Amino acid sequence: MTTIDIPEDSPFGFANLPYGVFSTPGTRPRIGVRVADWVVDLAAALGDDVFAQPTLNPFMAQGHRRWAEVRDRVTELVSGQVPDKAAHPLGSVRMHLPIQVGDYVDFYASEHHAANLGRLFRPGAPPLMPNWKHLPVGYHGRAGTVVVSGTDIVRPCGQLKAPDEDAPRFGASRRLDIEAELGFIVGTGSPLGTPVACDDFAEHVFGAVLVNDWSARDIQSWEYVPLGPFLGKSFATSISAWVVPLQALEAARVPTPPQEPKPLDYLREGEPWGLDIDLTVQWNGQEVSRPPYREMYWSPAQMLAHMTVNGAATRTGDLFASGTVSGPGKHQRGAFIELTWGGKEPVQVNGESRDFLQDGDEVVISATAPASTGGHLSFGEVRGRVLPALTSE
Amino acid sequence: MTTIDIPEDSPFGFANLPYGVFSTPGTRPRIGVRVADWVVDLAAALGDDVFAQPTLNPFMAQGHRRWAEVRDRVTELVSGQVPDKAAHPLGSVRMHLPIQVGDYVDFYASEHHAANLGRLFRPGAPPLMPNWKHLPVGYHGRAGTVVVSGTDIVRPCGQLKAPDEDAPRFGASRRLDIEAELGFIVGTGSPLGTPVACDDFAEHVFGAVLVNDWSARDIQSWEYVPLGPFLGKSFATSISAWVVPLQALEAARVPTPPQEPKPLDYLREGEPWGLDIDLTVQWNGQEVSRPPYREMYWSPAQMLAHMTVNGAATRTGDLFASGTVSGPGKHQRGAFIELTWGGKEPVQVNGESRDFLQDGDEVVISATAPASTGGHLSFGEVRGRVLPALTSE
Repeated sequence: MTTIDIPEDSPFGFANLPYGVFSTPGTRPRIGVRVADWVVDLAAALGDDVFAQPTLNPFMAQGHRRWAEVRDRVTELVSGQVPDKAAHPLGSVRMHLPIQVGDYVDFYASEHHAANLGRLFRPGAPPLMPNWKHLPVGYHGRAGTVVVSGTDIVRPCGQLKAPDEDAPRFGASRRLDIEAELGFIVGTGSPLGTPVACDDFAEHVFGAVLVNDWSARDIQSWEYVPLGPFLGKSFATSISAWVVPLQALEAARVPTPPQEPKPLDYLREGEPWGLDIDLTVQWNGQEVSRPPYREMYWSPAQMLAHMTVNGAATRTGDLFASGTVSGPGKHQRGAFIELTWGGKEPVQVNGESRDFLQDGDEVVISATAPASTGGHLSFGEVRGRVLPALTSE
Repeated sequence: MTTIDIPEDSPFGFANLPYGVFSTPGTRPRIGVRVADWVVDLAAALGDDVFAQPTLNPFMAQGHRRWAEVRDRVTELVSGQVPDKAAHPLGSVRMHLPIQVGDYVDFYASEHHAANLGRLFRPGAPPLMPNWKHLPVGYHGRAGTVVVSGTDIVRPCGQLKAPDEDAPRFGASRRLDIEAELGFIVGTGSPLGTPVACDDFAEHVFGAVLVNDWSARDIQSWEYVPLGPFLGKSFATSISAWVVPLQALEAARVPTPPQEPKPLDYLREGEPWGLDIDLTVQWNGQEVSRPPYREMYWSPAQMLAHMTVNGAATRTGDLFASGTVSGPGKHQRGAFIELTWGGKEPVQVNGESRDFLQDGDEVVISATAPASTGGHLSFGEVRGRVLPALTSE
């Protein structure tokens, strides 16, 4: 038996217990829980086949009562001794995409981000569109290109047209960017014709991950009118390997910033689902931004209520992301297009000047939240490195 | 044994042989081929378990050589006698969603439709955006709400704001519309980082279906800037039950209308993939439109090449639709917002005046294409009836 030593200040202690899908050399992907620097194999420890599956979906589909029950059992398990065959040092495992993604929706819930992008993309016009404070603006992204942290990102090619050029040309994106976001995973779906009320959020949402919504700004700016972003985003979206259970975020719940005008009834929360989470963005190992999630105008409960108010069904594995997390300060911007103001104000990264991403650059987004036991819990990280485009120009 | 009598002019003869998923009372959904007014149970007839599955995905994933081989075997089978247990009269079966949808993308490939909507949504501005003739504009829709023909459509609720109102209100859509489209189903996916060339279209695309992209125009017009349509579309998208194999459409292949300016290299086709297909839209049983697919500016091969040029992966079951099929004539418009010019020019339907859909209305979209044996083949139909909204106002 293995006794797992959990340092008192560990961000992966009893207050966290995130789920992921891991494998060790020569074995199949299965479900584990991270505790300190260990991964506990749940199928091996609890003898339940639902944890021997290669995604969290079958477990998530069992519903929120079951999630709470398993969390209690896991707490008990890691408090005592874990069978040796179920305890793997973190360094010995490989992590996989934890969910089979159903639909992927990306919102646009930071007022600071939306206003900054409005100023950059539509200079001279009001920074926020008239609808922005009435509803959480969102759109569907590509579910099939959601990848797990650590996956390399090949620089995308596509049509590029500068405002002063007559026609587009084909080439590799020169304005490759990130968007630091939080993503929410639907555990229990809702049938067609059944809106999910804000206050039923915790019955449906299993947990949260970090998201890097890689964005090719030059492809996006030429293609996105009138039907929205498409190839500028669809080449890859990275998520963190560890899914932090919603139950672990109770201590992080805070009200959203004041919403004026008051939203329509279906968007009003009984209990707040703003989240006091601090993200950190590292560019080649240097911290360049600390986006505060607590500044997000719309809460994830409001996002889910909006997404389903027309009767749209949700499914186990649906992923909806917050959109870029940006705060009011320059050092709080979650996308490089904002941080460098469209490339006009480069930042220094390890002594080199950067506007957008260069080949070989690596971005790591991490986050912490207050833990119910005091101290903080960690979301782990979402990491990605940029590889050169496949096409020579 | 059953001998299937195939009338010489049957639109479901040897030149068609579409695949679907059916069940008879008390049995599980499985794969069948439609021949005249019969459904042939392929698992029962060919003894291959891949056809006992509840979706076409496992069969489609076997690749285009296998699709051709099975088509030959099915041709042989229905030319002779079919085991009784494998032959079901069409009227005795229930049809199911034929595929498990991966990602759903909707294009906007009709110049007439895009220009009409430009005039209606952005009066005074140029009808086509500057990017429109350079790339097939498209966006991701909601895969989880794709439903099979015959599914009732509940009128969606959401935020509505007329241009002359100060703030949105919540209510049932009053401008519920259709979009008559053709959809293409990816059989063999392509990995991340691998663009699919126009000329590889037939290696990846298994077949085509009819699509009704139900659209709540009042929800859409308020929400869609700047990230595109979302709740105005995501409540339901209907597809026909029978998937017409791409092989059956050889005789329908025609060049697209002239493309000027010449598209970039990756959008150039060696062999044309325009399609000479005639759609028909019936509103409460009365034909109101005959949209000609051959007028579509962008071909489906160009759509797939564009969708993957940034390295985005495709998966078995991905569905991409053409966008509304509209021709130059008024009687060729595939959406009611165009047909009635935003409701200003109502049409007469069985002696009643109609602009948008009323509760109880039923829409049936059908289509025919030239068959390789002479005559025509049919896409069957995509049918849907509007039920009242769930919320009383």
